[in-house]
Amino acid sequence: MAPTLELLEEPAENLPVKAVSAIRNGAPAAAAADLRLESPEKHQRVMNVFRAFIADLCQQYGEGHAGSPMGMAAIGIALYKYVMKYSPKNCNYFNRDRFVLSNGHACLWQYLFMHLVGVRSMTLEQLKSYHSSKLDSVCPGHPEIENEGIEVTTGPLGQGLANAVGLAMATKNLAATYNKPGHELVNNMTWCMVGDACLQEGVGLEALSLAGHWKLNNLCVIFDNNSVTCDGTADVANTEDINTKMRATGFNVVDVYNGDSDVAAIVNALVAARSSDKPTFLNIRTTIGFGSAMAGTADVHGAALGVDEVANVKRSFGLNPNEHFHIPQDVYDFFSDIPGRGEAHEAGWQAVLVKYHEEDPILGAEFERRVAGKLPEDWTKCIPHKEEHPTAPTASRKSAGIVTNALGQRINSFLVGTADLTPSVNVAYKNKVDFQSPELRTACGLNGNYSGRYIHYGIREHAMCAISNGLAAFNKGTFIPMTSTYFVFHLYAAAAVRMAALQGLQQIHIATHDSIGVGENGPTHQPIAVAALYRAMPNVLYIRPCDAEEVAGAYIAAIQATDTPTIISLSRQSLTQYPQYSSREGALKGAYVFVEAEDDDFDVTLIGVGSEMGFAMQTRELLFRDHGVRSRVVSFPCTRLFEQQSREYKQSVLKPRAGKPTVVIEAYPSYGWERYADASVSMNSFGKSLPSKDAYEHFGFAPESIAPKVKDLVEEVRRDGIGTLRGDFRDFNGSLGVGLEH
Amino acid sequence: MAPTLELLEEPAENLPVKAVSAIRNGAPAAAAADLRLESPEKHQRVMNVFRAFIADLCQQYGEGHAGSPMGMAAIGIALYKYVMKYSPKNCNYFNRDRFVLSNGHACLWQYLFMHLVGVRSMTLEQLKSYHSSKLDSVCPGHPEIENEGIEVTTGPLGQGLANAVGLAMATKNLAATYNKPGHELVNNMTWCMVGDACLQEGVGLEALSLAGHWKLNNLCVIFDNNSVTCDGTADVANTEDINTKMRATGFNVVDVYNGDSDVAAIVNALVAARSSDKPTFLNIRTTIGFGSAMAGTADVHGAALGVDEVANVKRSFGLNPNEHFHIPQDVYDFFSDIPGRGEAHEAGWQAVLVKYHEEDPILGAEFERRVAGKLPEDWTKCIPHKEEHPTAPTASRKSAGIVTNALGQRINSFLVGTADLTPSVNVAYKNKVDFQSPELRTACGLNGNYSGRYIHYGIREHAMCAISNGLAAFNKGTFIPMTSTYFVFHLYAAAAVRMAALQGLQQIHIATHDSIGVGENGPTHQPIAVAALYRAMPNVLYIRPCDAEEVAGAYIAAIQATDTPTIISLSRQSLTQYPQYSSREGALKGAYVFVEAEDDDFDVTLIGVGSEMGFAMQTRELLFRDHGVRSRVVSFPCTRLFEQQSREYKQSVLKPRAGKPTVVIEAYPSYGWERYADASVSMNSFGKSLPSKDAYEHFGFAPESIAPKVKDLVEEVRRDGIGTLRGDFRDFNGSLGVGLEH
Repeated sequence: MAPTLELLEEPAENLPVKAVSAIRNGAPAAAAADLRLESPEKHQRVMNVFRAFIADLCQQYGEGHAGSPMGMAAIGIALYKYVMKYSPKNCNYFNRDRFVLSNGHACLWQYLFMHLVGVRSMTLEQLKSYHSSKLDSVCPGHPEIENEGIEVTTGPLGQGLANAVGLAMATKNLAATYNKPGHELVNNMTWCMVGDACLQEGVGLEALSLAGHWKLNNLCVIFDNNSVTCDGTADVANTEDINTKMRATGFNVVDVYNGDSDVAAIVNALVAARSSDKPTFLNIRTTIGFGSAMAGTADVHGAALGVDEVANVKRSFGLNPNEHFHIPQDVYDFFSDIPGRGEAHEAGWQAVLVKYHEEDPILGAEFERRVAGKLPEDWTKCIPHKEEHPTAPTASRKSAGIVTNALGQRINSFLVGTADLTPSVNVAYKNKVDFQSPELRTACGLNGNYSGRYIHYGIREHAMCAISNGLAAFNKGTFIPMTSTYFVFHLYAAAAVRMAALQGLQQIHIATHDSIGVGENGPTHQPIAVAALYRAMPNVLYIRPCDAEEVAGAYIAAIQATDTPTIISLSRQSLTQYPQYSSREGALKGAYVFVEAEDDDFDVTLIGVGSEMGFAMQTRELLFRDHGVRSRVVSFPCTRLFEQQSREYKQSVLKPRAGKPTVVIEAYPSYGWERYADASVSMNSFGKSLPSKDAYEHFGFAPESIAPKVKDLVEEVRRDGIGTLRGDFRDFNGSLGVGLEH
Repeated sequence: MAPTLELLEEPAENLPVKAVSAIRNGAPAAAAADLRLESPEKHQRVMNVFRAFIADLCQQYGEGHAGSPMGMAAIGIALYKYVMKYSPKNCNYFNRDRFVLSNGHACLWQYLFMHLVGVRSMTLEQLKSYHSSKLDSVCPGHPEIENEGIEVTTGPLGQGLANAVGLAMATKNLAATYNKPGHELVNNMTWCMVGDACLQEGVGLEALSLAGHWKLNNLCVIFDNNSVTCDGTADVANTEDINTKMRATGFNVVDVYNGDSDVAAIVNALVAARSSDKPTFLNIRTTIGFGSAMAGTADVHGAALGVDEVANVKRSFGLNPNEHFHIPQDVYDFFSDIPGRGEAHEAGWQAVLVKYHEEDPILGAEFERRVAGKLPEDWTKCIPHKEEHPTAPTASRKSAGIVTNALGQRINSFLVGTADLTPSVNVAYKNKVDFQSPELRTACGLNGNYSGRYIHYGIREHAMCAISNGLAAFNKGTFIPMTSTYFVFHLYAAAAVRMAALQGLQQIHIATHDSIGVGENGPTHQPIAVAALYRAMPNVLYIRPCDAEEVAGAYIAAIQATDTPTIISLSRQSLTQYPQYSSREGALKGAYVFVEAEDDDFDVTLIGVGSEMGFAMQTRELLFRDHGVRSRVVSFPCTRLFEQQSREYKQSVLKPRAGKPTVVIEAYPSYGWERYADASVSMNSFGKSLPSKDAYEHFGFAPESIAPKVKDLVEEVRRDGIGTLRGDFRDFNGSLGVGLEH
């Protein structure tokens, strides 16, 4: 059983916080020792105004989330006034503490504190734009990364908690890589506010297990334990012993029993978290909607209080019920020291940085490049030249492995991880060092430390990708997280990949074992509809290269896409290499002519995609040999990149005006290919447990069964004209069905 | 701290198992008291043959998963020979214990035990078809529900564990509904085998929390704790205290330290689980690949041992290395009592059933109907007639709520659940009783019991849907699980919905807050690509009704689709009702003519979908009023149902030969609509936090901005002919991009 941190037993208001030794990485943290708290009365006054203002904001449009922000007022004072290291005039100062509001619906709480401490863009007018139709509002219904002072976009519950684990890892990795005795370039804390939901969602639970395992003592999870969820009291669906569970997961656990008003207790617990040997879990009891008659009930979770009740709240706080959106000067004054303290933090960090440069200009320059979010310019050297590719059939996961290995070895911006598939996904690079707590070296004989950049996420795909969002968001470009698992398991992680796309966070997802070529593992492991999800998702590059050269193109696209997550979709099985046809430049355009027809004289265009390119090429041969049908072949690794091309380029590739049919060959449903093709050789059901070759044959991908169907289509078009195919897409293998078929 | 069950301290082999009181629901379980174990030598002999056979099976094709099956041999003997109540000659006998292999890659273990105990279809020839190209193999790479004796398809890790929770709930609900003193119609146990992965995956953790909360003491989770995962020792990514964590989650925890050979200890622990007051977690230490030189290492997880090592294994077990696939008669004899015991179980249950019928023919008949998987024939009465719909604008979540309320109240096959969104999703039916442990009534004042059919899943969408798979798989048709959450959170649950589709399990997912009409909650809550996933997924009905009448059609489709999960996609905001145009019969065909052109004289077809139908209808008016353009309108609630219709019907709806353009209007990406349309008014980015109406306007859905674009298209086609649109799909709002845009 892990020890819990001791809390102060004496009343702590107006006393200096006990000088908790705040040593991390050998140097004392700045703020802890000389903290003096204001009086409980003053805190109460600020909280009253704060809570009334929240009630006003929600009442304005008769909706919004009032309950949690009102409940969390004391926590906010503890964080924003006393404990958090940040600079409201420069919210992006590098070594700031990171704060994540994982219960993102409580965003008003964050917005209002940001206003009070002086974040410039957070004006009174902006605050009042919450739930309004104001287009340039910085107060959306959930916090959004685009806005000043917001570290990550949160809202889908559990995500923020996993992001926070990533943010804390980023600090650990940078600290272990760059900090030197006396020169702490990076030593920020990560504070993560969570509600009940984040502790129920699987992605949160996965992330907590990893935080405990990695002993991320720079992470403090603050549980707004108001015991209420939308459905009523939280125990309607949850009666576990959360403190014991968190201890078993590797956290120090601290209880605060009066989170509604005991600012000092919260401050003590937060300060202690800075010097914990493990991540800290603060279990703070609060009252949702504190101050209102509906306090402590689900009614106040996602609703305004009503005009009368807002007035009652103000009256009970001794405020004028007829004053709306009112913040008296003394409340502003309470926070007036914050900008100055923030500037001091910044100045302190700048001083460290200057000294660091003097002592180690080379490492200093590298650090500055990382801060600027840049890769070394010679990253292109990690991408093999065309002539370096093997010519023998090679699985694309192996071709990709060569590139990942080079990137991982040479460029320390890459954090390469896997959801426990090291033997299969080929991302383990030479001389890799695992990201691990050094303490585990003695405890379990693990080889690794915090400067390690190979990450064993365990069998936790969702957390892997959500944590990667935190890594990428720490400071844009400082890290490029790479993840790896089988493509089908990117469905487990989909909600996190979506959040990366929505936030414009760069990451590279190595998705092996795509298509039905996976083989014997069977339909559960053969991804069928997953590609459609990512091809339809805004701001995602889903790339299926057909050979090593296109793999090279996929990596170039992924590295160049600095605001976009990329999924590189790779085969388990060996693929024929096409050095005479394939091209990285073509792949970078999304699609390109693989084999052109002589003299523009052709009967059909075949689109080959990824691991199914071989079938397209073999079908082309058969069509000519057996039927005299002349095909051109287009390689189509990425629909999104293709859509970025000019209309002229697109038409030169697909030749829609030639009056000839186009057939796509891919072992996914044809859904979405109708934009480019008239017919498909595709999957209309889930797969089957068969060896790769047999699976393809079973589902109609043998060139011998494709060729006659294409020939028939060509003859039909010759006879009836291309117009006959309008509104009559042909799925040669049948269209998607209902019920079970194999 | 929960007490752990005591283990026998004396050596238990050859002794009767301690008469653990196996009382559940007031009646003694059949098998526990008089269990006599065979000698340790005999067990060792059986395990030796078993392990050698596994090694042979993987060696045959040089691949497969040998390690876990070899490690779990003793667990298998305990379950299949001694503890589990089942009937190998009739694997579907209703009151059988359910067994789930959540670590599905270990399927050879299950296949081989099924062979040994006499499951008819599991012949020697079939066993040897593992990883072969045999088309009708019942031994795929992961267990599949279609095959005799397999309760659920497993493989994607964590899913099986959640399924098992659903299976155990199903038993609890039926028992509480139908069992009477002395007449226990349903009292089976659910045994669930898990590896490390299932305990790391979020979906598993969510499900475990619920099992503990609900006190599902008929669930026993058996942890094959071999401390090895693909990446090496499990502690490379996990060092938590699993036993403490499981106790905190509400489980009884039992340790078995020698799971490689101590059959008696395992039997004792399993038997004790039958009489536990909580769900049981058995932590059984085993050695992966037991018997091979690579035992205890990751090398033996997913690989064959190699010819020499297979021979060594056999030699070390005293078996002939030159004999392959050999099961001596004495090993068959060891299991020869099982079929007879199974028949006795069945006969016992039949006797109870007969008596039950005598005592309560009405309830007996209802139970038989449930067993037969049938709904009462008057379920159609729950679907409102057209004239009953409100004519005022109504949110489709409210129209759906009326139907759900009727189904929930009247038909006890429906288990209606929500991921903590009762106030928003409108599925709480009148006089609902919560599914809860009756014990929580005193502990937390919760109102509910096991006969309750309203399920508070907490904020656990993935487990909600994976548990629903277990409910649906308990006995096909006995339960129709309904889930509910915002549509965007069906992305959290996607891997589970996929497993329902793959297994042909009926469920109804109420997915509210679809499209950008969600409004102020912003882009995190506005589902953009999620519909594409489900429209492309085999065997899923994704239905977006445009008004109450189409909602009625959606429910009819969902209830009729007995082998298919259905997602009914509903609006948060009010929708215009179209009693003069909408039709349930049309909705059941997927798409239909909503407003036909007079005399077949039209310029354009507008496709309206779900909550965007109103824009199509308003655009039609504007087009005629301002531009003289005549539109017909098609309602398109479900692409999959439409694909099932005849070519003639499809062409009559879309009229592709008329030479006129078709424009789809939906607030999702156009991806996939190219099959039916030439142009789209769609989303090319994520959404934005704005009130519903403003969000639509911002993204170009105002009829005033749609109409001129459609007019231009109509003019272009008049000028250049319909052929000009070939291969040139027009996204009026721009096509899907890379990078951040709003």
